[in-house]
Amino acid sequence: MTVVVDVDTPGGRYPIHIGPGRLDSLDACIPADATSIVVVTNPVVGELYGARAVAALQRTGKRVLRIDLPDGEAHKDWQTLNLIFDGLLENRCDRRAVLVALGGGVIGDMTGFAAAVYMRGIRFVQVPTTVLAQVDSSVGGKTAVNHPLGKNMIGAFHQPIAVEIDTDVLRTLPAREISAGLAEVIKYGLILDPEFWQWCEAHAAALRALDRDALAHAIRRSCELKAQVVGKDERESGLRAILNLGHTFGHAIESGLGYGVWLHGEAVGCGMVQAAELSALVTGFPRADVDRVRKLVAAIGCPVTAPDLGAERWLSLMQVDKKAEGGEIKFVLMPRIGQAVSRTAPDDAVRDVLKRTVA
Amino acid sequence: MTVVVDVDTPGGRYPIHIGPGRLDSLDACIPADATSIVVVTNPVVGELYGARAVAALQRTGKRVLRIDLPDGEAHKDWQTLNLIFDGLLENRCDRRAVLVALGGGVIGDMTGFAAAVYMRGIRFVQVPTTVLAQVDSSVGGKTAVNHPLGKNMIGAFHQPIAVEIDTDVLRTLPAREISAGLAEVIKYGLILDPEFWQWCEAHAAALRALDRDALAHAIRRSCELKAQVVGKDERESGLRAILNLGHTFGHAIESGLGYGVWLHGEAVGCGMVQAAELSALVTGFPRADVDRVRKLVAAIGCPVTAPDLGAERWLSLMQVDKKAEGGEIKFVLMPRIGQAVSRTAPDDAVRDVLKRTVA
Ligand SMILES: NC(=O)c1ccc[n+]([C@@H]2O[C@H](COP(=O)([O-])OP(=O)(O)OC[C@H]3O[C@@H](n4cnc5c(N)ncnc54)[C@H](O)[C@@H]3O)[C@@H](O)[C@H]2O)c1
Ligand SMILES: NC(=O)c1ccc[n+]([C@@H]2O[C@H](COP(=O)([O-])OP(=O)(O)OC[C@H]3O[C@@H](n4cnc5c(N)ncnc54)[C@H](O)[C@@H]3O)[C@@H](O)[C@H]2O)c1
Ligand SMILES: [Zn+2]
Ligand SMILES: [Zn+2]
Repeated sequence: MTVVVDVDTPGGRYPIHIGPGRLDSLDACIPADATSIVVVTNPVVGELYGARAVAALQRTGKRVLRIDLPDGEAHKDWQTLNLIFDGLLENRCDRRAVLVALGGGVIGDMTGFAAAVYMRGIRFVQVPTTVLAQVDSSVGGKTAVNHPLGKNMIGAFHQPIAVEIDTDVLRTLPAREISAGLAEVIKYGLILDPEFWQWCEAHAAALRALDRDALAHAIRRSCELKAQVVGKDERESGLRAILNLGHTFGHAIESGLGYGVWLHGEAVGCGMVQAAELSALVTGFPRADVDRVRKLVAAIGCPVTAPDLGAERWLSLMQVDKKAEGGEIKFVLMPRIGQAVSRTAPDDAVRDVLKRTVA
Repeated sequence: MTVVVDVDTPGGRYPIHIGPGRLDSLDACIPADATSIVVVTNPVVGELYGARAVAALQRTGKRVLRIDLPDGEAHKDWQTLNLIFDGLLENRCDRRAVLVALGGGVIGDMTGFAAAVYMRGIRFVQVPTTVLAQVDSSVGGKTAVNHPLGKNMIGAFHQPIAVEIDTDVLRTLPAREISAGLAEVIKYGLILDPEFWQWCEAHAAALRALDRDALAHAIRRSCELKAQVVGKDERESGLRAILNLGHTFGHAIESGLGYGVWLHGEAVGCGMVQAAELSALVTGFPRADVDRVRKLVAAIGCPVTAPDLGAERWLSLMQVDKKAEGGEIKFVLMPRIGQAVSRTAPDDAVRDVLKRTVA
């Protein structure tokens, strides 16, 4: 059974299809005027699902190419992106070529950015294969690569023409990746939907165990909530910033330890605990709810204790983050569960939070 | 005296200011909420005009930085673009930084593209200092860098917030650059405005000699015509393609000889003669007008005989060009002076034109 969630932004309208086996009907989302189809993936996902995706796409009768990028966040850079451009140009792909991102958030972000800037913009389809990519990165059109001096610093807003979510592919995903992805799922409840938050508290174990119904519900609700936010604020001028709950702390962990030591979602999970602590100091978020956040983050299998980077290094890492504007660090904070606001916090409160949350 | 031409596109509304001495009032176009101003230029233009531009911008009271890129089309690549990102990140520039492109089309295209993708898009101002940049590349929001396999293959549509044209800075421009820029000026007459074309025929010598009044009129009319086209078709889905008159042949010359051997405008000038010849074969463009085109291209100081790349190489170079879609080569052709259409042409006709125009 396939569920459809619609996304409607100034930059494009497109459907998200969610269901088991979507991989085998990818041909349905390729426009008739496409000249060629280029699947961008990596050796891990390509080995597991590349042949099925290519077979489905070949039913369009169009030329289907496949480009494999090296796996991992460490390769989310310009050099790797160039492998896509090389492949497209060597094969003389024109403006009507359609890219298909088959993989996690790294493949999705890089393929989307390549599509955004190849010949000043071509179409692409997201086929996310991790929990994180299915509930978050594939929806909303944010694309980017990293720069040695900062994560996702070079990028574009570029909406896909479709998002195809095959829930079955998660069965091959390592447990750590599942936990990391679930951090983004509970994030939606925490910032937008107290009922969904409670549902997550009740179904944490089922989600970790990849229970089919629980997973389907969680992905659908996450996509709906993300689509709502993105529909109102495509370019992150205001509302969309609340999706960054836990990310200011999280990015500091990721870049402080070196990308790849913690998974993105793990850092965000821990960062949500830190944001909850900061909210208790700044917006009056109830202490009892800080405990609930810590408990659910732990229940989905994410760390709740932050690494010791030294308080000054923490502050400086958060400052370079793109949410820092005009010198003050901006955080997403919660007045209560299911509500979020974007605001600055005094350095002293942040230091306090670090004392409470760092190992 | 300053003339204003307004540009109105879905991607942004902005003024073009044209007049002598605009360089000294650049501060007027910087928005109040800008956090810092980063002038991107090269050693040649920077030496001539950098200090004046920086001094004017410092009157805003904001931090003004300057980044010098190596000069020339050969450096219009990702490596050089990264120098901008490095400078922005090392100086912790945030999303409210404003870039100022001070230079010719190379600096403008690279700075514009950097602005398009730095943190997924920041604002920038065009301060074009060549004829070509003043009448063409600074207006309309096309930005790009080259890839080893193709010119301008990686880029974005990103409109500036203002274009500041100081007509005095052209006095230091080498004569060859002036001629090359004038090719784009007469192009507007040829595709859109038969009266302007005649005016150019009458004022070719005055333009080459940088006669102040002639220059001011030519720049203004060129900007008006480009703004009209871009206002109707920002993303080159149809109408805007006519601005590529002479460019399919021209790009083949540039990439066939290696970028930098001929100037872009020289290649376009010669390409217009070739497009006129092709028009005579395909759209019934009068032979007498082919001669007028050849004569005016020569009068502004551009070559009218194309380099001998071999017919097959010519065809293959034009095929890789981004105007080639679905395998057929698309050209901009003229039914008569002041009118242009975008259409494909049979390879045999192209071979014929090459026989007539190649040295
Ligand atoms: N664009 C956005 O809005 C947005 C939002 C959140 C995160 N992100 C980005 O997403 C990235 C993280 O994405 P991610 O967590 O998906 O990481 P990832 O893409 O690196 O995937 C994680 C690992 O799982 C493997 N894998 C993927 N699918 C698999 C499957 N079905 N079975 C087995 N293995 C599989 C991958 O090869 C990889 O080794 C970060 O770069 C982050 O910046 C972007
Ligand atoms: N974006 C667009 O719509 C568009 C349109 C046409 C061309 N272009 C691009 O523009 C580029 C060509 O631009 P260009 O012809 O201005 O070349 P350019 O930028 O290389 O400038 C030509 C030379 O003149 C020097 N120079 C610039 N201003 C000067 C001055 N006032 N005095 C003395 N020297 C000066 C430069 O340093 C350079 O050496 C190409 O890369 C082309 O792809 C873009
Ligand atoms: Zn995230
Ligand atoms: Zn041109």
